[in-house]
Amino acid sequence: MKYPFAQIKLLFIVIISLNCNFAVAKDVSPTKNGIDYPVGLKNWRVIASSYRTDNNTQRVILGNNIAVKASREGHTKPWPKGSILAKLVWKNTTHPDWDSAIIPNEFVHSEIMIKDASKYKTTGGWGYARWKGESQEPYGKDQSFTQECLACHSQVKKNDYVFTIPATIP
Amino acid sequence: MKYPFAQIKLLFIVIISLNCNFAVAKDVSPTKNGIDYPVGLKNWRVIASSYRTDNNTQRVILGNNIAVKASREGHTKPWPKGSILAKLVWKNTTHPDWDSAIIPNEFVHSEIMIKDASKYKTTGGWGYARWKGESQEPYGKDQSFTQECLACHSQVKKNDYVFTIPATIP
Repeated sequence: MKYPFAQIKLLFIVIISLNCNFAVAKDVSPTKNGIDYPVGLKNWRVIASSYRTDNNTQRVILGNNIAVKASREGHTKPWPKGSILAKLVWKNTTHPDWDSAIIPNEFVHSEIMIKDASKYKTTGGWGYARWKGESQEPYGKDQSFTQECLACHSQVKKNDYVFTIPATIP
Repeated sequence: MKYPFAQIKLLFIVIISLNCNFAVAKDVSPTKNGIDYPVGLKNWRVIASSYRTDNNTQRVILGNNIAVKASREGHTKPWPKGSILAKLVWKNTTHPDWDSAIIPNEFVHSEIMIKDASKYKTTGGWGYARWKGESQEPYGKDQSFTQECLACHSQVKKNDYVFTIPATIP
């Protein structure tokens, strides 16, 4: 009699457990290089933030479990296979009640980079993807957009092509 | 024979489940108004970010599960009981390889506000706490520091005393 009850509890807790890292799948198309929008990205943990003075944006940088573990343990040269770094980017605006606070306005895009040295060997070991705006439209008409990503990221080849420097979080 | 095996699996999955939201407790003292540092805060989800031009800092604003759910559903006037908003604050510095990117430098402090209209009725329904620096030393010699918090947050009484405007995250 006890065994079926334990199985039900087990199923229930498995569902709770999965919900911690995965949200409901969104209707977002993959990019032309075949990268899917990671399910549950908005629930990932923080690695850093940044503010750009050239294009009037700010962003938070999140990571999947592999990337967060690597960043917290300092294993980022190179980042381990399966690491995904994600940027959520917003246009800046001034806080309506605090003039010196610059806060997120409209959503610009989500960007990710996925580490797989063999699968993405032509782009420095990282697969790149971007989805534009609130509608999350895939960026790039064809696969060539990844060369645009690589051109910029090659400036930080010494850091495994990653601009993000994990922030100190006590 | 099967029953004990199911129990072991159950225990294992309970442990995994708890790890999704709670990390190992840190050796951080409570503030003088009796607020404990929330266990697992660094693993909470993102609500917003901000950049301050007056004190040269940037921050990410995280929330516990109650706060994240409320922010995503737009139930923030008032925020529900048990909501905790947390700010991780860093001094700004220029990215060494990208002049127009301003990124986190040294850690300044963690701040939280906890909603409980009855427990914290003398401070607008929110309990305030701050822990300074990487050592996470509690801010405030006695309870009076909360009046300092309230003085500032009263400017946004219309928004349930909260400056944070949840960022759009598709």
